Amino acid sequence: MLYFATGNPEKVKEAQAILGIPIKIAELELDEIQDIDIEKVASRKVQEAFNILKKPVFIDDVGVYIEAWNGFPGPFAKFLQEAGGCAQILRMLENEKNRNVLIKSLVAFCDGKKIHIFTGELHGKIAFDARGKTGWGFDPIIIPDGQGQTYAEMGKEKKNSLSHRRLALDKFKKFLNKQTS
Amino acid sequence: MLYFATGNPEKVKEAQAILGIPIKIAELELDEIQDIDIEKVASRKVQEAFNILKKPVFIDDVGVYIEAWNGFPGPFAKFLQEAGGCAQILRMLENEKNRNVLIKSLVAFCDGKKIHIFTGELHGKIAFDARGKTGWGFDPIIIPDGQGQTYAEMGKEKKNSLSHRRLALDKFKKFLNKQTS
Repeated sequence: MLYFATGNPEKVKEAQAILGIPIKIAELELDEIQDIDIEKVASRKVQEAFNILKKPVFIDDVGVYIEAWNGFPGPFAKFLQEAGGCAQILRMLENEKNRNVLIKSLVAFCDGKKIHIFTGELHGKIAFDARGKTGWGFDPIIIPDGQGQTYAEMGKEKKNSLSHRRLALDKFKKFLNKQTS
Repeated sequence: MLYFATGNPEKVKEAQAILGIPIKIAELELDEIQDIDIEKVASRKVQEAFNILKKPVFIDDVGVYIEAWNGFPGPFAKFLQEAGGCAQILRMLENEKNRNVLIKSLVAFCDGKKIHIFTGELHGKIAFDARGKTGWGFDPIIIPDGQGQTYAEMGKEKKNSLSHRRLALDKFKKFLNKQTS
């Protein structure tokens, strides 16, 4: 049995569907350290989760690296989201022609011996206005490269087939399959 | 003997001058947790410092709360500073008429029994362009309310007489004087 330390039951459903194994939610109060490097943040967090649970556990995290801002806000995107959501980020970017964004999703898994990191990177653009209704967070303003639609316009199914989190979970799945085969 | 856990010897000199007692620098690798509440961040950090040193120790921290951004970036201002400095923040704020900013400085002191927090708040404006040469960080774009000059224009002495950090250190001094009297 794998534990997923998260407060979001939707994420557990998604991970279960992709990984194809039963997953149990572990709602823990975990701290995250301040660091622009999301791998460092996640390694510490999953180790803390394991120390509490004493069972194999994984976490996920995401960083939003805006090129015009030299990579800011990275892991702090969630605080920008809480502060003013998409409208605020659009306003802050209003004068920027460079709309490039790198979204880095990460799954960190601790089996007690080692921490394994699986990343998914998505290159895209920040839209000039919010479009679409599905999803959450910055979904209405993120246009993956090669797509004409924002995450929020393309709908959950299509988003989940190509998202940054999907890429990370797929790598995690391959790893798990190797362990059990 | 008091320890000041910081990597900045300039801050030690300033604190020594204000507090009027000998202070020893403690260069520790301390993590900071991700939280928009600077008091929470500082409490955890000073406790960690005490756990390592086992001696009375204080730290300082600062948050920059921009009103037009609903308080963002707060404690994450240092990462914005690293990403692109004053030029970047000015560009991000280019369309904002509301230039109000709250700068919150904080001294957290752990005597082994308890954590004491001393805060200094400065209300000001973000300038429309960088001005002045002294100081560091956001000094060229911060105009304290009631002043016509930026921190960087007024020079070190004047800045230190009214700065947010000064206010916090003054409160800490009063506290220390009470302890020894």
